Amino acid sequence: MTAAIDMGRGAVLERLADVCQSQGADPVAAQLDALRSWMGADLVEVERALCAVDARDTTVCNSARHLLAYEGKRLRPLCVALAARVGEGFGPEARELAVAVELVHSATLLHDDVVDLGDERRGAKTARLIYGNAGSIFGGDWLLVEALGCIRRANVPLALERMLDVLREMLFAESLQLDFRGKVGASTADYFRVVEGKTASLFRWALDSGGRAGKLEDPACDALGRFGHHLGTAFQLIDDVLDVAGNPSVVGKRLFADLHEGKMTYPLLLAVSREKELAELLERCLKSDEPFQRSELERSVTAALHRTGALAESMQLAHTLSETAVKCLDDVPRGEARDALAAVATAIVSRRK
Amino acid sequence: MTAAIDMGRGAVLERLADVCQSQGADPVAAQLDALRSWMGADLVEVERALCAVDARDTTVCNSARHLLAYEGKRLRPLCVALAARVGEGFGPEARELAVAVELVHSATLLHDDVVDLGDERRGAKTARLIYGNAGSIFGGDWLLVEALGCIRRANVPLALERMLDVLREMLFAESLQLDFRGKVGASTADYFRVVEGKTASLFRWALDSGGRAGKLEDPACDALGRFGHHLGTAFQLIDDVLDVAGNPSVVGKRLFADLHEGKMTYPLLLAVSREKELAELLERCLKSDEPFQRSELERSVTAALHRTGALAESMQLAHTLSETAVKCLDDVPRGEARDALAAVATAIVSRRK
Repeated sequence: MTAAIDMGRGAVLERLADVCQSQGADPVAAQLDALRSWMGADLVEVERALCAVDARDTTVCNSARHLLAYEGKRLRPLCVALAARVGEGFGPEARELAVAVELVHSATLLHDDVVDLGDERRGAKTARLIYGNAGSIFGGDWLLVEALGCIRRANVPLALERMLDVLREMLFAESLQLDFRGKVGASTADYFRVVEGKTASLFRWALDSGGRAGKLEDPACDALGRFGHHLGTAFQLIDDVLDVAGNPSVVGKRLFADLHEGKMTYPLLLAVSREKELAELLERCLKSDEPFQRSELERSVTAALHRTGALAESMQLAHTLSETAVKCLDDVPRGEARDALAAVATAIVSRRK
Repeated sequence: MTAAIDMGRGAVLERLADVCQSQGADPVAAQLDALRSWMGADLVEVERALCAVDARDTTVCNSARHLLAYEGKRLRPLCVALAARVGEGFGPEARELAVAVELVHSATLLHDDVVDLGDERRGAKTARLIYGNAGSIFGGDWLLVEALGCIRRANVPLALERMLDVLREMLFAESLQLDFRGKVGASTADYFRVVEGKTASLFRWALDSGGRAGKLEDPACDALGRFGHHLGTAFQLIDDVLDVAGNPSVVGKRLFADLHEGKMTYPLLLAVSREKELAELLERCLKSDEPFQRSELERSVTAALHRTGALAESMQLAHTLSETAVKCLDDVPRGEARDALAAVATAIVSRRK
C-alpha cells in the first residue's frame, strides 16, 4: 500500500499521526507521515472555515467556539476530504460538508457535556463550566443550525436528507443510552445499537456524502458508507479501551469517566458478563449516592478487565472491524485516496488519544 | 370585516376564541366563531400529524410528546394555514410547514425549560421534571430535526433556508437574553431585539412560508411576513402583560415567572425607567441569592406597574402593533383568509392565556 503513495508529496494525517501510538519507523506512522502534505491544504481550508464560523461575541458563539478552539482530531472532516478525493477531488462542496460534520460532532459534545455534567474535554474545562448550561445548550443548537446551513449550501445529492436521518439515529441512540444509564446488565447488542447510532452513523455520512461531493455514485458511495460505519464502530471501541486503560494525561480526561457517568463501555460489559462479582460491585457503585472509593474501585475493575481478557478482546474486535472496513474499500475506485483511507483505518486502532 | 366571512361555514379559531377574553356578543368572538369550521379541517390534519410524530417509547420521544400533548394554542400552524389559504389553499406542503412550525416552537420550549429551570408549562409539570434535563435537551433536538425533515419534504421555495435563518435569529436572541439576565437596566431597544429574534421571526416565517406553500410570491409573501413580524411582537407583549397581570389559573403558570427567572419584561422595563426606587428594589431581588418575600415584592411591583402607566402602555403598544400588522395586509390578496388573519391579529391582543 505504501508504494501507491507518492512520498514526495509530504504528509497528510498530522493529527492522526500525533494521536497514534506508532512511532519512528513503524509502518503506520510512515504511511501517515507520507500522506501529510498531500491532504494538508484540504484540512487547512476546513480549519479556516471552522474558525470563520460566526465570530460574534455572544455567550452562544463563545461557548461553541470554546469547544472548536480545543482542536479535536478532525477525523470526520478528514474522512469527508479523503472520500471526495476518491472521486473528482476536494472542492467547495466537500469543504462545506467537512465543516458541517465537525460542527455536528461538536454540537453533540456540547449537549452531551450538559447531560453528563462533564467538567473536562480535550484537556480543558467544558464550555458549560465557563458559559453555563444555557450557553452549552444554545451553543450546541447553534452549531447544528450552522452545520445544516453548510450542507444546504453544498447541495450535494442526498447529503441533507441523510444528515437529518443521521441526527435522528444519533438522538435515538442518546435516548437508549439514557435508558441504560446506571444499569450494569445491558447486552452487547444494546451496546452496538448505541454505538451505531451515536458514532458510526456520522462516520458513515462523512464517507458517503464526501464521495458524493466528489461526484461518485453508488455502489462506490455505498461502499464508502459501509467503510465509515465499521471505522466509526472501531473508533468507539478504542475510545472505550482508552477510557479504562489509556494514559489520562494523553487522552485529556480522567480514566473511567464513562463508568462514573453511569455508562457501561464494551470492555466493562464483557468483563461483567464473565464475573458475577464484578457485576455486583459495579451495580452497588452505580446505585449508591455515596461517593465510593474511586481508586480502590478502579484497581478492582482494571484487574478484572485484564483477568477476564475483556480488554484484549475489545482491542481485538476493534482490529477486526478495522480490517472489515478496509475490505469494504474493494468496491471503491483504486488510488491514493483509497490507500489513505485504509491507512486511517489502521491508524485509528493504534491511537492513544 | 365580519360581512366578508361566510357565517354558514361555521367557525375556525376554536382555540383562539377559547383563549380570548371576548365573550358572547363581542364582535371578536363572533368573528372567531364564524371562522371555526372553515379552518377546522386544516387544524385537525395538523393535530393528527403532530400526534403521529414518532411514537416510539423512548425517553427522548416521550419527553417531546409530553409537551405536544398539552395542547398549546397552535397559533403558528394556524398562521401557516391561513397564509396558504390566502393563496391556492391548504395542501400537503402547507400541512408539513404547519407541523414544522409547531415542532420548532416546542423544541425551543423544551430547551428553554432546562435553561430556565422551569417547573410548570401549560398548567402541567415541564418535561424536564418528568424525563430529566437530558430527555428535555435531546427531546428538543429531536423535534428540531423532525421539523427540518417536514420542511425539506414540503419543498416550498425558500422555506428551508429561511427557517435556518430564523433558527439563527432565535439563538442569538436567546444569547442576548442570557446576557441581560438578572440585569434591570436593559433598554427597550434591547428588549425588542430579543423579542424580534425569539418570537417575531418564527411568526414571520409561518406567514411568509405559508403563503409560498399556497403558491403566492412577493410582494404578497413579503407583506404576509411583515404581518407576522408585527403579530408576533404584539403576541409577546401580551405574554409579558399576562406574566405580570394575568390570571394564573387561566394562564397556566404563576405570576411574575419571567421576573423570577431574571427576565425583564416590557411592562417592567417601562416601569423601572420611570421609578428609580423600583429599579433598586428589583436590582436587589435579582442579585440576592436569598429568597425574597415573593408576595410582598409582587404587591410592590404590581402597584408600580399601575402607578407608572407601564401596564396600560404595554397593552396600548400591543394594540398599535396589531393594527400595524393588519395594515400590512393591504398588500395581500383580498378574501376570507385575509379577513381571518385580521381577526387573528385583533383576537391576539384580547387573549387571556
